Amino acid sequence: MNIGLVGGTGKEGRGLAARWTRAGHQVVIGSRDPAKGDNRAAARCDVVVLCVPYAAHAATLRELADDLAGRIVVDLVVPLAPPAITAVRIPEGNAAALEAQRLVPDARVVAALHHVSSVHLAELGRPLSGDALVCADDAHARDVVLGLVGDLGMRGLDAGPLVNAVALEAMTPVLLYMNRKYKRQGLGITIAGLDG
Amino acid sequence: MNIGLVGGTGKEGRGLAARWTRAGHQVVIGSRDPAKGDNRAAARCDVVVLCVPYAAHAATLRELADDLAGRIVVDLVVPLAPPAITAVRIPEGNAAALEAQRLVPDARVVAALHHVSSVHLAELGRPLSGDALVCADDAHARDVVLGLVGDLGMRGLDAGPLVNAVALEAMTPVLLYMNRKYKRQGLGITIAGLDG
Repeated sequence: MNIGLVGGTGKEGRGLAARWTRAGHQVVIGSRDPAKGDNRAAARCDVVVLCVPYAAHAATLRELADDLAGRIVVDLVVPLAPPAITAVRIPEGNAAALEAQRLVPDARVVAALHHVSSVHLAELGRPLSGDALVCADDAHARDVVLGLVGDLGMRGLDAGPLVNAVALEAMTPVLLYMNRKYKRQGLGITIAGLDG
Repeated sequence: MNIGLVGGTGKEGRGLAARWTRAGHQVVIGSRDPAKGDNRAAARCDVVVLCVPYAAHAATLRELADDLAGRIVVDLVVPLAPPAITAVRIPEGNAAALEAQRLVPDARVVAALHHVSSVHLAELGRPLSGDALVCADDAHARDVVLGLVGDLGMRGLDAGPLVNAVALEAMTPVLLYMNRKYKRQGLGITIAGLDG
């Protein structure tokens, strides 16, 4: 599959690119800096993953809206307010993923990959722990993304409609808090009770 | 310890009462119906657990505000909007637990136990699976509640300040969605990566 990573030159994007390439996908890395990558080319792939910080989320979506129309757009952005990254903040308009859907109504927005550590992603020899919870209103787009998170080695789980994305986004600051509290890195979430 | 369960005559309250009694605590079950229990007596215990449905949350807190002042108040209420219990809804004023803290400013509100199934609680022979994430601003109250969830047989984890309660509350509809989707009952959350 043809996967574009908008803002994909950071640790998260590089880790995703390496792991998806290894799984046989074609990956286009985008950047605002033309010397590093082409966001517009990334936004024209079959599946487009938004890897930008929340501060650039709305502006990026507005800028690429024409390219993104009709595509599967994976939103893993968390509305963190640095430096207070361990306290949950719900934006005025609810989840970032819902904002993405409002800004690009024709895109098929899928919320996913909020709980995977960029550090772990970048360590290609490391199996990723935890489940990948996926929220979407479009069933086909959801299933495609469940397949893609499976290709990363994670257990992908359907977590319901896009309106549920706020729960996924809100858990990230909780995990960042627990990383600090329990002196760990890259804590994730596993759904308990699914086996057996 | 002296534990009061406000609105504790349902499945959840009965399960908590049986398990905490078994662990050596004194439990007072309260109810709006004087024939079934005394909410006011429950609200005068060292630790008070709110087991009411969200529709009765604010009214119960207002009614018992004088009794609750100064106490450790465990809020496990989730702002569900039946029948749409598998879609996340964030109330105007953010988390139910924050609303509790606003309504009873002198209480030491602790958000906990959102992800434990009332059905599983009531089956006393069943070990509870999943972690109990606990949010509080008062460190002593948090530690007391971490001990109490440990007495239920769960791993209690500090999930940060009370403002993080919205993440815990929002995960409950996601779990209810997944129960239905994956034909399970009482799915919970485990934090991945803490062991080792």
